[in-house]
Amino acid sequence: MSDLYGLCVITLTPFHDDGRLDEESLRKLTDFYIHSGVHGMTILGIMGEAHKLSESERYRVMDIVLRQTNGRVPVIVGCSAPGSDLAGELAKKAEEAGAAAVMVAPPANLKNEDMLLRYFANVAEKISIPIVLQDEPVTTGVRLSAPFIARLAENVPQIKYVKLEEAPTTIKITSILKLTNLRIFGGLGGMYFYEELERGAVGIMTGFAYPEILVNTYDLFQAGKKQEARAYFYRYLPLVRFEAQLGIGGVTIRKETFKLRKAIESSHVRFPGTPVDPQTMQELQDMIAFLGLE
Amino acid sequence: MSDLYGLCVITLTPFHDDGRLDEESLRKLTDFYIHSGVHGMTILGIMGEAHKLSESERYRVMDIVLRQTNGRVPVIVGCSAPGSDLAGELAKKAEEAGAAAVMVAPPANLKNEDMLLRYFANVAEKISIPIVLQDEPVTTGVRLSAPFIARLAENVPQIKYVKLEEAPTTIKITSILKLTNLRIFGGLGGMYFYEELERGAVGIMTGFAYPEILVNTYDLFQAGKKQEARAYFYRYLPLVRFEAQLGIGGVTIRKETFKLRKAIESSHVRFPGTPVDPQTMQELQDMIAFLGLE
Amino acid sequence: MSDLYGLCVITLTPFHDDGRLDEESLRKLTDFYIHSGVHGMTILGIMGEAHKLSESERYRVMDIVLRQTNGRVPVIVGCSAPGSDLAGELAKKAEEAGAAAVMVAPPANLKNEDMLLRYFANVAEKISIPIVLQDEPVTTGVRLSAPFIARLAENVPQIKYVKLEEAPTTIKITSILKLTNLRIFGGLGGMYFYEELERGAVGIMTGFAYPEILVNTYDLFQAGKKQEARAYFYRYLPLVRFEAQLGIGGVTIRKETFKLRKAIESSHVRFPGTPVDPQTMQELQDMIAFLGLE
Amino acid sequence: MSDLYGLCVITLTPFHDDGRLDEESLRKLTDFYIHSGVHGMTILGIMGEAHKLSESERYRVMDIVLRQTNGRVPVIVGCSAPGSDLAGELAKKAEEAGAAAVMVAPPANLKNEDMLLRYFANVAEKISIPIVLQDEPVTTGVRLSAPFIARLAENVPQIKYVKLEEAPTTIKITSILKLTNLRIFGGLGGMYFYEELERGAVGIMTGFAYPEILVNTYDLFQAGKKQEARAYFYRYLPLVRFEAQLGIGGVTIRKETFKLRKAIESSHVRFPGTPVDPQTMQELQDMIAFLGLE
Repeated sequence: MSDLYGLCVITLTPFHDDGRLDEESLRKLTDFYIHSGVHGMTILGIMGEAHKLSESERYRVMDIVLRQTNGRVPVIVGCSAPGSDLAGELAKKAEEAGAAAVMVAPPANLKNEDMLLRYFANVAEKISIPIVLQDEPVTTGVRLSAPFIARLAENVPQIKYVKLEEAPTTIKITSILKLTNLRIFGGLGGMYFYEELERGAVGIMTGFAYPEILVNTYDLFQAGKKQEARAYFYRYLPLVRFEAQLGIGGVTIRKETFKLRKAIESSHVRFPGTPVDPQTMQELQDMIAFLGLE
Repeated sequence: MSDLYGLCVITLTPFHDDGRLDEESLRKLTDFYIHSGVHGMTILGIMGEAHKLSESERYRVMDIVLRQTNGRVPVIVGCSAPGSDLAGELAKKAEEAGAAAVMVAPPANLKNEDMLLRYFANVAEKISIPIVLQDEPVTTGVRLSAPFIARLAENVPQIKYVKLEEAPTTIKITSILKLTNLRIFGGLGGMYFYEELERGAVGIMTGFAYPEILVNTYDLFQAGKKQEARAYFYRYLPLVRFEAQLGIGGVTIRKETFKLRKAIESSHVRFPGTPVDPQTMQELQDMIAFLGLE
Repeated sequence: MSDLYGLCVITLTPFHDDGRLDEESLRKLTDFYIHSGVHGMTILGIMGEAHKLSESERYRVMDIVLRQTNGRVPVIVGCSAPGSDLAGELAKKAEEAGAAAVMVAPPANLKNEDMLLRYFANVAEKISIPIVLQDEPVTTGVRLSAPFIARLAENVPQIKYVKLEEAPTTIKITSILKLTNLRIFGGLGGMYFYEELERGAVGIMTGFAYPEILVNTYDLFQAGKKQEARAYFYRYLPLVRFEAQLGIGGVTIRKETFKLRKAIESSHVRFPGTPVDPQTMQELQDMIAFLGLE
Repeated sequence: MSDLYGLCVITLTPFHDDGRLDEESLRKLTDFYIHSGVHGMTILGIMGEAHKLSESERYRVMDIVLRQTNGRVPVIVGCSAPGSDLAGELAKKAEEAGAAAVMVAPPANLKNEDMLLRYFANVAEKISIPIVLQDEPVTTGVRLSAPFIARLAENVPQIKYVKLEEAPTTIKITSILKLTNLRIFGGLGGMYFYEELERGAVGIMTGFAYPEILVNTYDLFQAGKKQEARAYFYRYLPLVRFEAQLGIGGVTIRKETFKLRKAIESSHVRFPGTPVDPQTMQELQDMIAFLGLE
């Protein structure tokens, strides 16, 4: 499996209106992402409501997506868990199912650096595919400094990627690249994607509901057309920013968007999902019209 | 099933040295607790490392403990989960397996009170046994005020108990009893058990490794021998406090203690468990000797 | 004093390179803001490094700005403090010096709503000018729900304004306006200013270093030219977003910008101020050029 | 000035019932502490409500206590502030007034270790007396690991002491002593004082309202009578623990106790101080009677 880069979109998990996993929509959504040009798919993250799935549902999602992608794009599987036994077991099953890499965040509130090191080493020894280290301070309560990320990468060589979520990602990219050869993915909902690329990011992981916009930005940038990439990205920035305001609540509005785009059947979010008011949905439609995205 | 009261001990989950569930020790430990006189058992809490168990392991633990207790004491099953679908499913299975009640904490960082209300309502509609509301601000990041606990109890009548963990529990007991008829269990590792009883608590939930001490305190208190209860409790307070200093790390030292007491085979804690240094183990043994507990 | 509205810019406090208060730059900066068309000035906020000023320096800043504005725009004085005695004393001096209003945030980590109510009542009884309630959850650790904001406004009638900083501000504006007549200022560095106005905000408080952009957006909006306001605002959104990425660290980059704009002499920030790397400064200049703001 | 050791009591700041500084009680209280045998006094900490004092009040307290002690015991002055300019200025004035040392905590939420290092270096260069590094994770949000404390001590040689407040202090003492020669003071309200001494602490800083109990414990321990020290300490542990349950709210109950002991005139706490209910006061009196402390 070659390297990961570009938009490795963080995918949703579609449900029926009654809350059951919607397998048909999951297959359709997978194709939708791939037709949008994404360079990879990151499944079973927070945006995919992995924490609200039972274990058998997690494995079902993994299986369906890997079959449906069928090698067309690499699949990264989120394997975060409160303990390294569980995370390791998830990672092992992900590798067996054909994942290109696993993404692992620190367990909530584990701040002792020696223990964090051991945590990732424990997971790494269960698998032979690469690990994407997930920097996720708001959700986990764990801040990963650039020097500690370098120490992690040195001690756990399977950590080949890091996905950033601590603002400002721009400065952090530069700090990490001074210390390591890690390949870095940006985050923050895509808000700083152009600047992240300028700083040396190899791509981005985010669930933004118009993935083709990030794909085009990336492709223009890679083709050396930086000014075009920038102007193109800024044109759609109002929408990127609009989704980003909702943070984790973004899952609700993103499901609504994907339903509008006919990629999924129902916008059902398992409880608790942050609610959005009707005006937000109206603002979203106005924004889409304003930007000519219909 | 009659009411819950007294020491509903929060149980450990024993593992083999290699980390696998130790079913034989789990049966022995269950008997050990019952022989110590506990009035109930609370399984699959944080102290029981429930978050580090796979789903099938959780159900296995539930099954073994319920068979082993065989009605001798009521069993409360921890069913906290990040979403109400999962929590409801766990609760339903607990009821089916014969649990007397389920214990449910708020999902991490859900601070919107209307959403918290709906969360507990969602879980309640899946079961007919009582719910123990678990106040667990340090772990969940969610503070439950006395007026909000009253509102919860009013709207979700299956919430019949609350287990407190926010210091000072003493004052909070009085505040809640002014507003509701909830039956309250103390916490904080047993540190204020005598005072909690004086305030009107019906018992305590904690994993303290000498359950007989809390049982005796409770029994003396219930028999109207308050001064004896108090003197007895204070005599062992140095040990209660010693265990309490470790917080969640207490699982490590408690497993060591139960191993010393021959209730379990291995003191293995799944990673990450807070480590204790060799001196702590020595201090523990000195303390046990000092108090004549050997 | 008439009502507050529009851009009530959160002002910087300029220092000399050696860290002393730069009174001359403070006067120049005051004029700079007024010439930019701001509708009010909010001094001694976090952006103004008020917490790093001695008391005498705070009073000096208040005095200089109030003399220099000389009634040309209303001045709101930040009076947050860990106790209501101190906050009340600051507020009283602000009123005596001619402030139009005071801005007060909850003390750090005070989460008990009855105590918060009393806190604001204590401050209110020392003054007769209006209070701007400052919603500042990230810095204070205190989340103010819309129903509680309504309860505060009902019990402390001097609270006539609220300045929001909890994302998403858009939805929160609507929630508050359903319950109260409070006049609401947006925040979040201006990132959602257009949408905040659409939701009913009367203006914004932020330290964005190109205040004229927010002034023009507001003026177009007020003149009924909504589509123009929107297109104008989105044009400069890349810069608004760029500053916003730095959060509180924004004071550093904003001082650099105001120095570039010759409004202040030195970009010195009192320690600790979040550092920005040289590349950030270069990105800022590129952005300014890209948007034709030189 | 010789070394600091033993009980360096964290002092209260007495007010009149109307909230004004009670200078007469402050002098009486100073004598009360000294007559209790304390080995040092730590003024202007959180327990002393320093954050609720104006700057002139802080200096007034400093002046009165230093005059009143008149060299009988060393005085450590709390100089924590949000910026190193302010902290340095407070520290300089403390040294000029005759302080034996200053105590400085990290500014709230400053988690970047290089910046923390510079913060303490900035303060150190303003003074020639020792610094007590205050580990205060709950209040500051900043966790200081043992290796980082060692790095701080190496780079800022004036840091000669550290006062711990992160549980478990026992294990942390041993971790720090493996890496440094720092002299360590325990904390946590005195809850683990005996064990802290066993681990190598040179003393404790706490505001416990019966300082003579900690003094006697320390003196017995230092005289080599360890078993007596232990039995003596455990005898009064119920009271130590009772005060400790209130955390920062302890200021209220401690003022009540000192008023009962006739060391101060009024138990007034500046708002917001955590309230205690009448039953708590009754429990306190019962406890005092139970332990024969009247």
